[in-house]
Amino acid sequence: MPFLPKSFDFYSGFEQLSTKMTEAAEELIVLLRNGTVNGEQHVKQLKTIENEADHIAHEALERLNKTFITPLDREDIHGLVTALDDVVDLIFACGGRFLIYRPNYLHPAVIPMAEFIRNATKEIYNAIHGMRNTSHRRQVLTHCIEVNRIENSADDQVREGLKDLFANEKDPIELIKIKEVLEMLEETNDACEDVAHRIEGIVLKN
Amino acid sequence: MPFLPKSFDFYSGFEQLSTKMTEAAEELIVLLRNGTVNGEQHVKQLKTIENEADHIAHEALERLNKTFITPLDREDIHGLVTALDDVVDLIFACGGRFLIYRPNYLHPAVIPMAEFIRNATKEIYNAIHGMRNTSHRRQVLTHCIEVNRIENSADDQVREGLKDLFANEKDPIELIKIKEVLEMLEETNDACEDVAHRIEGIVLKN
Amino acid sequence: MPFLPKSFDFYSGFEQLSTKMTEAAEELIVLLRNGTVNGEQHVKQLKTIENEADHIAHEALERLNKTFITPLDREDIHGLVTALDDVVDLIFACGGRFLIYRPNYLHPAVIPMAEFIRNATKEIYNAIHGMRNTSHRRQVLTHCIEVNRIENSADDQVREGLKDLFANEKDPIELIKIKEVLEMLEETNDACEDVAHRIEGIVLKN
Repeated sequence: MPFLPKSFDFYSGFEQLSTKMTEAAEELIVLLRNGTVNGEQHVKQLKTIENEADHIAHEALERLNKTFITPLDREDIHGLVTALDDVVDLIFACGGRFLIYRPNYLHPAVIPMAEFIRNATKEIYNAIHGMRNTSHRRQVLTHCIEVNRIENSADDQVREGLKDLFANEKDPIELIKIKEVLEMLEETNDACEDVAHRIEGIVLKN
Repeated sequence: MPFLPKSFDFYSGFEQLSTKMTEAAEELIVLLRNGTVNGEQHVKQLKTIENEADHIAHEALERLNKTFITPLDREDIHGLVTALDDVVDLIFACGGRFLIYRPNYLHPAVIPMAEFIRNATKEIYNAIHGMRNTSHRRQVLTHCIEVNRIENSADDQVREGLKDLFANEKDPIELIKIKEVLEMLEETNDACEDVAHRIEGIVLKN
Repeated sequence: MPFLPKSFDFYSGFEQLSTKMTEAAEELIVLLRNGTVNGEQHVKQLKTIENEADHIAHEALERLNKTFITPLDREDIHGLVTALDDVVDLIFACGGRFLIYRPNYLHPAVIPMAEFIRNATKEIYNAIHGMRNTSHRRQVLTHCIEVNRIENSADDQVREGLKDLFANEKDPIELIKIKEVLEMLEETNDACEDVAHRIEGIVLKN
């Protein structure tokens, strides 16, 4: 069939994006743990990972527009690629904002929130690496349920963190900084849950 | 046709979700009116309603993935279920955040904003209960237009509320708390408008 | 074919919306440059433009629901109309919020951010006016890439602006006001990039 473009492995695109996602989540924890020591360097590293993810996503979407027969519904591929890319963008944004604000101390909810993100990205990585093989269907769904569970824990954590922050932090500008860092970490956890929902939807449909 | 799953009543799913939405909106008003008296109890009640809505939405979406012939376009059912569930989630989030912040006083724009949400959810409830019957088409659209009108009033209200807040509140942390409560109430009103737009779209298409 | 509604020129709808978008962006710069002098009048003017855009978008979407054969995929038309309308809504919101807050001084990042929006809307205007003619495909894509470049510059600008703001502004309420104005301008730039992505997607697909 000479008019068909060479077939593209969309699953490989998902897998590569999920790798970038876990790399970014690990780098974010290092950045937050070190406070602002070598902060610029860690943000630069996050930016590199984000650019790589952008590149993978862009290529996958371009191939999607040129491919007639796709292994999954076109809008599901588009939605999953975009959702994975969004997680990487948000992780980078968390790191960048943290470095701009340079809060005076590390609030006790920050590292746990970043660890929830890291754990969720690992579950997503495993879910995605099971998608090719329909006999792994049950395990894929188990990983997705685990992401939901993590997101619920992150919700509780951010609620506790904000309660503590508003009870104890009397400097309004410091409060604004920490509040926003916690909320960006929460948003990133939500974005991980969105990825899991999309994977679930795809697996249940096919 | 033995291979088709038992048919599922999607309209009943919409109706049940719209009931949960009105229940949540009423509970939110009670919570806000009582300040923090019995606050934990009211938030727990909101959480219960939110869980019930989640359950209804989840079942409807799962059935959607297994049903070959649907009464409306698949993506319209998915969009409406998700949008209704989002409203319930946001109402719960408003209540939860209010209780975390425990502002020192009830700003005069708070209850009116919650009443707009309550009024909008009632209109949506009525719109949705008219969807089954194509002869009620005109009334359904009238309810949707009313939701738009309410959302415009809520926009004006929040603008006035923020103007007043920034003119009079000199404590920055108190200002942050009230500002965010008002903005979450506004976001919930926007989510009600989104539901109305989806109902309109469905009715105009069919 | 008497049962088909009179055909509707969707490209003309896109073009009209892109005109409203550039008008709104110019008006926003005037409003911000003048501080609060004649502020109410400029916001009223923005509201008029926003209403006109709403009207155009509403008509296009209604025609989309009644048209059997569309020049582009139905969901692409819907997505582009909504995305263009969102930009106009956000420009109006920036102006409205600026007037509510009336910051004590014009932060040096504000006008550059509004100019990025103005430049992006001009590129979008040109991209959209090239969409009808497939021989202009390459120029259309060049305009879209330019919008991406502008959005990256706006990201850098807002990051620098916030860094400066948190380093120098000691009044927390003033800081809240300026921070939110900058973030709304950033969100509007993001919405311009979203329009560009949709145009790219449409052009690559067809």
